[in-house]
Amino acid sequence: MEISEKFLSRLNENCLYRALGIRIEEAVRGKARSRLEPNPTLCWPFQGQPHGGVLFTLMDTTMATAVFSELDEGFNCATIQIDIQFTYPAKGDHFVCMAQTSHRTGHIGFVRGEIYDAGGRLLALGQGSFRIIRDEFTG
Amino acid sequence: MEISEKFLSRLNENCLYRALGIRIEEAVRGKARSRLEPNPTLCWPFQGQPHGGVLFTLMDTTMATAVFSELDEGFNCATIQIDIQFTYPAKGDHFVCMAQTSHRTGHIGFVRGEIYDAGGRLLALGQGSFRIIRDEFTG
Amino acid sequence: MEISEKFLSRLNENCLYRALGIRIEEAVRGKARSRLEPNPTLCWPFQGQPHGGVLFTLMDTTMATAVFSELDEGFNCATIQIDIQFTYPAKGDHFVCMAQTSHRTGHIGFVRGEIYDAGGRLLALGQGSFRIIRDEFTG
Amino acid sequence: MEISEKFLSRLNENCLYRALGIRIEEAVRGKARSRLEPNPTLCWPFQGQPHGGVLFTLMDTTMATAVFSELDEGFNCATIQIDIQFTYPAKGDHFVCMAQTSHRTGHIGFVRGEIYDAGGRLLALGQGSFRIIRDEFTG
Repeated sequence: MEISEKFLSRLNENCLYRALGIRIEEAVRGKARSRLEPNPTLCWPFQGQPHGGVLFTLMDTTMATAVFSELDEGFNCATIQIDIQFTYPAKGDHFVCMAQTSHRTGHIGFVRGEIYDAGGRLLALGQGSFRIIRDEFTG
Repeated sequence: MEISEKFLSRLNENCLYRALGIRIEEAVRGKARSRLEPNPTLCWPFQGQPHGGVLFTLMDTTMATAVFSELDEGFNCATIQIDIQFTYPAKGDHFVCMAQTSHRTGHIGFVRGEIYDAGGRLLALGQGSFRIIRDEFTG
Repeated sequence: MEISEKFLSRLNENCLYRALGIRIEEAVRGKARSRLEPNPTLCWPFQGQPHGGVLFTLMDTTMATAVFSELDEGFNCATIQIDIQFTYPAKGDHFVCMAQTSHRTGHIGFVRGEIYDAGGRLLALGQGSFRIIRDEFTG
Repeated sequence: MEISEKFLSRLNENCLYRALGIRIEEAVRGKARSRLEPNPTLCWPFQGQPHGGVLFTLMDTTMATAVFSELDEGFNCATIQIDIQFTYPAKGDHFVCMAQTSHRTGHIGFVRGEIYDAGGRLLALGQGSFRIIRDEFTG
């Protein structure tokens, strides 16, 4: 499904993304890119550093959007599992996540993602699998 | 290291836990138990349901506390990686996470965790590995 | 599906299990137990110690049997993914693997497993997800 | 550490690789490439198809060699954990595995790998973490 800028704008207005500082910037044919500008009032245990759980949330949602961008209308996806590795402490005021589907069957999408800091340093790697489901809310 | 109620009280005051609704309730000899009362203003994409990223944050911090509860004074731990599986949608106003170390060497703690809803239904399973590090902030 | 001793006997005759020294001993209602008596001519890099890949094979097949033991006739399962942790070097002449399904939907079975040495020491932990599929070879 | 052809030749002579049909073909600066020509007498449950455990063994050893190729003399590595995804049935008479370290600290190497069939189809993806240890057998 082609993901329009309008769709992303509306998506990015959700309460969770706004609170954490997440924005999906692009999603096309199985690739998605997002940005995290961590909310200082949620940074713990280190001032100015997003928690691993915030990085996971960034990766999970970017992966899901990557899978979603390849689905036909009327379908959605849900996380089965993600393995996330943390390679380096997340320091800085913004971060980038890239995710890309590596394989998709009718029922499952496989996807990998990476998070980088502003200087391009690798902070986290993930690989996940997502169930592809018929969207209950569509027609 | 024995984890006192006072320690947990102070820990639970941190900005991230308060925003998400996380509270570590107990941690002793490699086992930890926590509770999530999800913040309705952060529930997305489903009203009243915590995001998978919030569940991950709950599991990560509970696992870390489980590992920490077995360390000597002056040591801390940091997440190497976690594999998390989501088995069922998280519905309800509170959730429980249990984590337990399965093995520990001098350098790495291995730990498993589970998240349940109020009715005891299994929502998420995780297994992770944590680096054991000398705490920079201690004497 | 109830798994008879006769079924297990036939299963255990397969070329891979025989070469590696794997035997599934029991599988009932989502739980399976197996035994590895490593083939000395395959032990590498340490004499008398099974390779991590042999331990993975033991865990994968034990998990699959655990999932299979809960399926209706005419269904089978296939590994989506497994996360395996190695906690301690595998020493000894026999090992035990236990696996248990933690959740099952119509499409996916979630399962955890552990491998122990003869003295009960934990050597490996895994959690995996398996697709449930209609068996092509039935009926 | 530079890995010579002579080193690889000797490595590839080990009993496990020979039985399974594994050969490490190249390893340099954190990248390794290997080849699997599955042993027909070990193919199960499908004739001519390597078991997932054999694919795991291929990936684990290729990852380890990738990490090893970046270590100083006198150091070695051991698998902490690997998450492996199986995306497609492995069919054919030979397969290729590529692995590459994504990050390395003094204590841990992070690495990703993929397995392809002869036609370039993706069969398995993995990401793992390896402990870096002083080699007991070196001077």
